[in-house]
Amino acid sequence: MPQFFTTLLHRLRVRDGDIQSLCRQLISQRGEVTQTALAQRIIELYRTMDSHQRLDFFNMLVGEFGSDQLAIQQTFEQHWHNPTPSSATALFKVIEPPRQELFRRMNTGHRGTETLVAMRGDLLRVLSDQPQLDVIDADLKHLFRSWFNRGFLRLERIGWHTSALILEKLIEREAVHEINGWPDLRRRLAPDRRCFAFFHAALPDEPIIFIEVALTRGLAQKLAPLLEISSPIQCTDDADTAIFYSINNCLHGLRGIPFGNFLIKQVVDELGAELPKIKRFSTLSPMPYFAQALRDHRRFARERLGRLLDDFSADLKSESGCSEPVEALFQLLHDDPTKHIEALSGPLRRLALVYLTFRIEDKLFDPVAAFHFSNGARLESINPFANLKPYGLKESFGMMVNYGYRSHQVEENHEQFVRSGEIRLSGHLRSERELAAQLWEGDAPRRTKKHAQSR
Amino acid sequence: MPQFFTTLLHRLRVRDGDIQSLCRQLISQRGEVTQTALAQRIIELYRTMDSHQRLDFFNMLVGEFGSDQLAIQQTFEQHWHNPTPSSATALFKVIEPPRQELFRRMNTGHRGTETLVAMRGDLLRVLSDQPQLDVIDADLKHLFRSWFNRGFLRLERIGWHTSALILEKLIEREAVHEINGWPDLRRRLAPDRRCFAFFHAALPDEPIIFIEVALTRGLAQKLAPLLEISSPIQCTDDADTAIFYSINNCLHGLRGIPFGNFLIKQVVDELGAELPKIKRFSTLSPMPYFAQALRDHRRFARERLGRLLDDFSADLKSESGCSEPVEALFQLLHDDPTKHIEALSGPLRRLALVYLTFRIEDKLFDPVAAFHFSNGARLESINPFANLKPYGLKESFGMMVNYGYRSHQVEENHEQFVRSGEIRLSGHLRSERELAAQLWEGDAPRRTKKHAQSR
Amino acid sequence: MPQFFTTLLHRLRVRDGDIQSLCRQLISQRGEVTQTALAQRIIELYRTMDSHQRLDFFNMLVGEFGSDQLAIQQTFEQHWHNPTPSSATALFKVIEPPRQELFRRMNTGHRGTETLVAMRGDLLRVLSDQPQLDVIDADLKHLFRSWFNRGFLRLERIGWHTSALILEKLIEREAVHEINGWPDLRRRLAPDRRCFAFFHAALPDEPIIFIEVALTRGLAQKLAPLLEISSPIQCTDDADTAIFYSINNCLHGLRGIPFGNFLIKQVVDELGAELPKIKRFSTLSPMPYFAQALRDHRRFARERLGRLLDDFSADLKSESGCSEPVEALFQLLHDDPTKHIEALSGPLRRLALVYLTFRIEDKLFDPVAAFHFSNGARLESINPFANLKPYGLKESFGMMVNYGYRSHQVEENHEQFVRSGEIRLSGHLRSERELAAQLWEGDAPRRTKKHAQSR
Amino acid sequence: MPQFFTTLLHRLRVRDGDIQSLCRQLISQRGEVTQTALAQRIIELYRTMDSHQRLDFFNMLVGEFGSDQLAIQQTFEQHWHNPTPSSATALFKVIEPPRQELFRRMNTGHRGTETLVAMRGDLLRVLSDQPQLDVIDADLKHLFRSWFNRGFLRLERIGWHTSALILEKLIEREAVHEINGWPDLRRRLAPDRRCFAFFHAALPDEPIIFIEVALTRGLAQKLAPLLEISSPIQCTDDADTAIFYSINNCLHGLRGIPFGNFLIKQVVDELGAELPKIKRFSTLSPMPYFAQALRDHRRFARERLGRLLDDFSADLKSESGCSEPVEALFQLLHDDPTKHIEALSGPLRRLALVYLTFRIEDKLFDPVAAFHFSNGARLESINPFANLKPYGLKESFGMMVNYGYRSHQVEENHEQFVRSGEIRLSGHLRSERELAAQLWEGDAPRRTKKHAQSR
Repeated sequence: MPQFFTTLLHRLRVRDGDIQSLCRQLISQRGEVTQTALAQRIIELYRTMDSHQRLDFFNMLVGEFGSDQLAIQQTFEQHWHNPTPSSATALFKVIEPPRQELFRRMNTGHRGTETLVAMRGDLLRVLSDQPQLDVIDADLKHLFRSWFNRGFLRLERIGWHTSALILEKLIEREAVHEINGWPDLRRRLAPDRRCFAFFHAALPDEPIIFIEVALTRGLAQKLAPLLEISSPIQCTDDADTAIFYSINNCLHGLRGIPFGNFLIKQVVDELGAELPKIKRFSTLSPMPYFAQALRDHRRFARERLGRLLDDFSADLKSESGCSEPVEALFQLLHDDPTKHIEALSGPLRRLALVYLTFRIEDKLFDPVAAFHFSNGARLESINPFANLKPYGLKESFGMMVNYGYRSHQVEENHEQFVRSGEIRLSGHLRSERELAAQLWEGDAPRRTKKHAQSR
Repeated sequence: MPQFFTTLLHRLRVRDGDIQSLCRQLISQRGEVTQTALAQRIIELYRTMDSHQRLDFFNMLVGEFGSDQLAIQQTFEQHWHNPTPSSATALFKVIEPPRQELFRRMNTGHRGTETLVAMRGDLLRVLSDQPQLDVIDADLKHLFRSWFNRGFLRLERIGWHTSALILEKLIEREAVHEINGWPDLRRRLAPDRRCFAFFHAALPDEPIIFIEVALTRGLAQKLAPLLEISSPIQCTDDADTAIFYSINNCLHGLRGIPFGNFLIKQVVDELGAELPKIKRFSTLSPMPYFAQALRDHRRFARERLGRLLDDFSADLKSESGCSEPVEALFQLLHDDPTKHIEALSGPLRRLALVYLTFRIEDKLFDPVAAFHFSNGARLESINPFANLKPYGLKESFGMMVNYGYRSHQVEENHEQFVRSGEIRLSGHLRSERELAAQLWEGDAPRRTKKHAQSR
Repeated sequence: MPQFFTTLLHRLRVRDGDIQSLCRQLISQRGEVTQTALAQRIIELYRTMDSHQRLDFFNMLVGEFGSDQLAIQQTFEQHWHNPTPSSATALFKVIEPPRQELFRRMNTGHRGTETLVAMRGDLLRVLSDQPQLDVIDADLKHLFRSWFNRGFLRLERIGWHTSALILEKLIEREAVHEINGWPDLRRRLAPDRRCFAFFHAALPDEPIIFIEVALTRGLAQKLAPLLEISSPIQCTDDADTAIFYSINNCLHGLRGIPFGNFLIKQVVDELGAELPKIKRFSTLSPMPYFAQALRDHRRFARERLGRLLDDFSADLKSESGCSEPVEALFQLLHDDPTKHIEALSGPLRRLALVYLTFRIEDKLFDPVAAFHFSNGARLESINPFANLKPYGLKESFGMMVNYGYRSHQVEENHEQFVRSGEIRLSGHLRSERELAAQLWEGDAPRRTKKHAQSR
Repeated sequence: MPQFFTTLLHRLRVRDGDIQSLCRQLISQRGEVTQTALAQRIIELYRTMDSHQRLDFFNMLVGEFGSDQLAIQQTFEQHWHNPTPSSATALFKVIEPPRQELFRRMNTGHRGTETLVAMRGDLLRVLSDQPQLDVIDADLKHLFRSWFNRGFLRLERIGWHTSALILEKLIEREAVHEINGWPDLRRRLAPDRRCFAFFHAALPDEPIIFIEVALTRGLAQKLAPLLEISSPIQCTDDADTAIFYSINNCLHGLRGIPFGNFLIKQVVDELGAELPKIKRFSTLSPMPYFAQALRDHRRFARERLGRLLDDFSADLKSESGCSEPVEALFQLLHDDPTKHIEALSGPLRRLALVYLTFRIEDKLFDPVAAFHFSNGARLESINPFANLKPYGLKESFGMMVNYGYRSHQVEENHEQFVRSGEIRLSGHLRSERELAAQLWEGDAPRRTKKHAQSR
């Protein structure tokens, strides 16, 4: 610990009353070294606080470090009477809440960025019950969008050569398909796999977001071979496809700061340069809310999806002995999923197709689909019985989806999706969707045409 | 060049009209990859523009990417009728000029940060003639204060082991005491010297600011031994003092973003840890405007400094044959500076003391002194005949100053200076200042007491 | 794969008969690139060979790549008739077996060093049955002593920040106290621990030897707290002692090349620099052959140790119901080790003291003791019931030993031990040894005095 | 300085008599830490010795640290009566001079490798006058061939991003075409150039050998455009040829340890991978002894080259007014080299061709040619008036040579050259050589055919 700071921190410890007075000093202090010592002390205090104290702290930030309403009014009036660019700048300055400057100053302390990101994580956990704290979230989000700007992130390949300190965080933060300890991680970093992460200079040991990729021959439509620890390592010379099978944000406090979109495309470019034989880039994605959507089918799609489900499920009910079709389906799959592959694959695929591609109140129901379509991906394949692990059956009756990324179409797909909601489908799904659409919409086949084209 | 970007850049080149339409697209575009391709294209265009085109570009940014006055009014009215924290946030959002978001998006392109910093450099060069561009400067400065926050800078020691790419920039950017080629630089990085710089992750080969330090036995009060290439390398075991003899900001586009304050103190801490025998930390600083101040003495201090100067210069005039005292002084020093050391040292030191420590219209005249006093430094010594190079004679009759940094006093000195303008002097200067003050202020000796104390 | 080598390797594959002819080509080839291609091919072939083929290969090296006896005779005769320094050099050249040059050339291929080290590992495994291969071992050992010279090794601290690739090797190669997976390793790299390894530039991912250190308050005399994964992490500020609790050679093929001696002392110096509060450096070492020595007591010490053991074990026999004292001891400890601590500690300590410090046929029986005494360590403490794990009870009835390293004594201790066999003991062990010696030697107490002194 | 060593070094300083007794202690010492402390002390003493003391030291090494002749005789006799592989090993051990072990132990000290390499440099400087020291050179060379084995060297690209510490050594050690300070070096590291060096882990800041490469369009046959600091930087996209225009060994103490052969080929492979458009790899080499060979033409080639020279030079003599043809040539070139390009180019080329390709007493006269032919290069082009700098005119009348490296021919060329002395020529040189050969050999045109073929 350097001597300037040691001396200053010592004094601060002697005299500091509470975090509130430290924050007041920090915002009014003009000497930068003292600022940093104050920032340091606030960070240390914050880190020792329990959740009640943190809530008090947040409320204090709302009460005391918001912008000065009187100054806003005065400045606005001046601006209004004589609006000039520089009066607009003055207005901007009084409207920016002092919290933002407080946070910028806190950032100068040791572990500042790390603590501010963790602080937003704490905030997000209580936000639904404490809507008055929204303004703090707006401030932190504004700062983080600037600080974690794409221009400040660095893509790095993660492998078995990577520091255990970082690898351990992948194990902790993999939330899509849990990593069961180091041998599992080791398989996911074997020569037929790739893993990439974004890093920020202020958080050198902290992957911000990471993506796991399998190099395969042909489009992988089942999860098990990708996750099986003992699966043989493939020769990458034979691989023609890169399967993105898991993408995870690591820092809760950066929720809503968009990285994933970028990561996928930069990884496509990296892989294309390293392995020119790889011609196809696709995800193998979950449908995390499919089962729930079917259960809530009335909310989801009122009578229409229900009708599809009913048609499909008459047989299920009799076979399983349940009268409710979703429960009947679970019952059958619970007993022995593989027995019903032939009978259920087609109907399930059609149901999923409707679920993934039709909008309810102008919104796609499935957030994963919405993410990939908005990135410019194409719906490549819907795969029943792709994830037979308990969580796979529970979430989506074991179904998974491939979203394909094709360099020459991504931008156009993205623009069409954003502009008109149009979704790109692979050829075979397009035909199937026509059929599904007739069942679904009955009277609106034309809209289907406009919205789904195969390329 | 990755394939996504290649494809996109190719299209952009085909269809782009001008930088204005590209900026419009960039600000309205929601797809991040397209944003980056647009950013890239704008950066490339900007880099090829001449100064007229850049001025047009700046004016376009003022005209088109300022905040929306109508929206401001509406949002303000809503806020005014029902002021809530979240209406304040909404107001903040409409008041932030779209330029800031445009710059943040430009930053995602390759060499984005570098180009934005260079852009502000271009802007500052024309600002005095183009006051309407102040608002762009306010936006860039706001962003840079956030991006180049102390928490994102990394202190690095510079030495002969450092990359030539970086060392070359020291040679280019040393503006206090010019580095005459590589042998000169090599001497300044010898074992009895230290050099430190701040770096930012987005500009890895670019020192932001650097400081040159000589390790000496005793307080160095002359410049020549420090700059002499052939001076023998001292054994650091004997050194008890670190002399900060040059500090340089490297990037014109970061003017006004404060780093130097921090750099000095962090370097004091680094040196203290590496070399515990070093007990004294001091600058050897120029007085760049001293001669000019004496010339402008009426503006500087009306009759008072004039009186001092006149008293001191009666003899000068007769000896040099010039009637104007400042010119007389130049004449004498020009002919043979060393001849007059005995006669001139005392009077020059007293004049400088007045110049450095008295305020005119509540401001110190000397910006270097103001910088160090505001950092908490103490005025340690005033050294006549310390820099006999032509620029030294011209700027300050060869005088230089030591400002001392003492860990246990820095914070207190800083606070006193900020609060009451009080300046800390070393013991022997304090006595000298009493005398000078009597000449200077005549009727206000009490104020002197309050303002100058030796410790 | 570079094109020169690709082309050459292709040809070699086409024409190569067997490894023997490749070795002949390699030793006669003058072009270095071809040499490297041949080396590469031999390495590849060797790596695919099974143990029978490798034995054939070794025998071929003995038969064909030894030195030329006729040339030796001729050169020797010339040297004998007219012995000059340069005829001695000529003699050296013909006597050096061509195998050494063959190995040096093999080393130029990719993974050359790694393969040669592995080759010696293979050789050592069969050497006891194939004494004719001793000459190859002499050649490899000669090369490795030169290549793995202390001047070419680099000490590195190992921590949780280290690459998983390297950490995995610690798990594999820890042979003293097995590392049970990654959580165990993580505890051993926690802030109150240190781990260091030697590395060689040609084997960048391969620790050559590593040492594990615990920082403790007081001398650690029990193993369990050091190995317990859930033991609380100590504050290093309180630590005054560094305990070296495990040291492991990683590469079987480097057996007999001495590194450990050096590693301990360099680590003492590193820790002394990092943590000046650490004042005591000591091992906590096993006695791997103690139980075996007692069982073989007639061989070990004929009637004398037997007498000590008999005296000590009369009670044991009656209590345990076994008539053989060593088995009686096992029986008691097997049932409940902690029950007998009071009764057994003293007698066991005395037996161990005799075992560790007396020579049989001028050799210490215990190799760990011999290693540390020859390094200049002092016997600090003998700790009964220190390792109650099954392997600890089996090897040494749970006993462990502290060997202390004291900077100012190490060289002198080492010299005395080498010169006269004298062993340094701590004060309390010295008294105990006097007693034990009387039992042991009866008629030779004087010799004891000479050999054991406390300091 | 670590404490073990400090303590030991202190004692050594107190008691050490002279370097001879330190060497005796080092060779007899078994403790490795003491060995290292002794090694350290010997290194320090050696570094302070002047050239007389070093000569004494070398003579002492010959007198005292050679092998034991009596032991050799005894071991040889045992071996002779019963020759076994292990008696051969025993013989090897007594014949290896103790100097080698002494050097290996010296290598454990700080800066050991560096000092031993420097020591051989010192030795080589006196060797011609002190032939009794040859045996030390044999020992050091034997060690260095093992230590600086290709498997322990690492190729690194050198550029403007490289440490100034290393770049400075390029400036110092470039001996082919002097580097005139940093701006010259900077041009040689510009984007249209490449520079590579071999490094050894024990000498991290010391390039062992380096090569300078220009990327050009077409075969560069003149030196000036490559060395001109202000020559415009070429776009590497257009380049189809890599010209190796300078290769330098940096460490005099490693003379005779072969690296250059390897470096060229590895650089060909590196460039081929980085820049697939580069199709031709060629040197632009000096003929450093051409003028001297012509002057010594009787020794060089008796009447034959003389005859060629006389035919060619009849005109020269009359024009220059000198009667001796070589002096006449110098005279003409000295006055204005470019005036005679047309007249002299053909004859000079033919003379050079004979000089470069014919053997005198089964040896090529030109060492640069011998090096490249033995590496498998082809004689591509002979370029009169290629280096008009004074040293170029003086050494070789301004002539330079291109030796071409072609992946698919290198091995075969090398083998043919080594086996039968056959040299590969480019097509146009082959025809020219036929003509030259007739003049040269007169009666032996058949031998010419066998030796020179174009491919």
